[in-house]
Amino acid sequence: MITIYGMTDSGNCYKPRLLMAKLGRPFKHVETSSRDGTTRSTAYLAKNANGKVPLLELEDGRFLAESNAILLYLAEGTRLLPTDAYERALVYQWLFFEQYSHEPYIAVRRSLMTYPERAVLATPERLASLLESGNRALGVMEAQLRKTPFLAGDAMSVADIALYAYTQDASVGGYDLGVLPAVRAWLARIEADQGHVPMAWLP
Amino acid sequence: MITIYGMTDSGNCYKPRLLMAKLGRPFKHVETSSRDGTTRSTAYLAKNANGKVPLLELEDGRFLAESNAILLYLAEGTRLLPTDAYERALVYQWLFFEQYSHEPYIAVRRSLMTYPERAVLATPERLASLLESGNRALGVMEAQLRKTPFLAGDAMSVADIALYAYTQDASVGGYDLGVLPAVRAWLARIEADQGHVPMAWLP
Repeated sequence: MITIYGMTDSGNCYKPRLLMAKLGRPFKHVETSSRDGTTRSTAYLAKNANGKVPLLELEDGRFLAESNAILLYLAEGTRLLPTDAYERALVYQWLFFEQYSHEPYIAVRRSLMTYPERAVLATPERLASLLESGNRALGVMEAQLRKTPFLAGDAMSVADIALYAYTQDASVGGYDLGVLPAVRAWLARIEADQGHVPMAWLP
Repeated sequence: MITIYGMTDSGNCYKPRLLMAKLGRPFKHVETSSRDGTTRSTAYLAKNANGKVPLLELEDGRFLAESNAILLYLAEGTRLLPTDAYERALVYQWLFFEQYSHEPYIAVRRSLMTYPERAVLATPERLASLLESGNRALGVMEAQLRKTPFLAGDAMSVADIALYAYTQDASVGGYDLGVLPAVRAWLARIEADQGHVPMAWLP
């Protein structure tokens, strides 16, 4: 059985758990915090030199890091990753959008507002900048979701799983989803899909 | 023929040009600046709602954004993208590493130090923080390249193309490659590979 090292209260770590639940596949969860120094320990750095979670360990002991790389690996050959070259490329596009234009604002603002050890970094200027950039990312999603039911087109994919993770509780970071009807309808479509589990769920 | 919209002096835009050169494939270049407002114009946002370069336009008029998604799309079926599922996943891993843990520090520090309009953002605290985080990313690469000749293993891949783009001139942003012998040997291996072109090259 594969193992996923992850912190429960992390959207990036929620992504592979949600995918495995939707695929109905068993896995072992190892709680691994990025807040208490665990991911910077010598033992953990030997598994992932970049010192981040989530991390996938295959049955043969090989490792794979980066949440969206894990999604692509696990979804290969399933309904959640297209085989058509261009449709598949759009999935890649949204996965990179998530890590570059969405997570660094929406996830970071959430952590600054909810993790006491990060409160010192939550200056008014930084919170305002993160709000503006995050809202721009949500606007790009809203525009796409007014045209297609899922981000990469007609079918749900791992791009939707990846962007669901930090969009579903963006309000915790102060983002107003009330003004984004297409995003809210999309969240509901993902939640209605088979095997859905909330962020707090563990196997 | 495909078209690539990009800014010559951008590592992200260099990536697809370098890949096409190494593959010996012709393409059309359309100079598109992210510094003069072009990528935020109504005409450009109609092509890419996220307002960034590079952008790929296929012969049939369809678009694909995100530099690393473009690399994966163009490299499909070539020597620069493995077919083995795990080897391919390692390529994904390094591509996401590049966009999350490398580019936001190394490319950003370079732009703060060389683009006059960004100088106001180049505070000593920010430059120090970017130096530390960028050096951490370079250290992760150095550790891998002491074990394997290329980032994802024995063969060159688009992961190497992606990370070459902003590593090759990291010294412009103040990073010292002199202390990273494995990284320097890897840069030389990529430059010795067929079809190599410098960043300033245009078709």
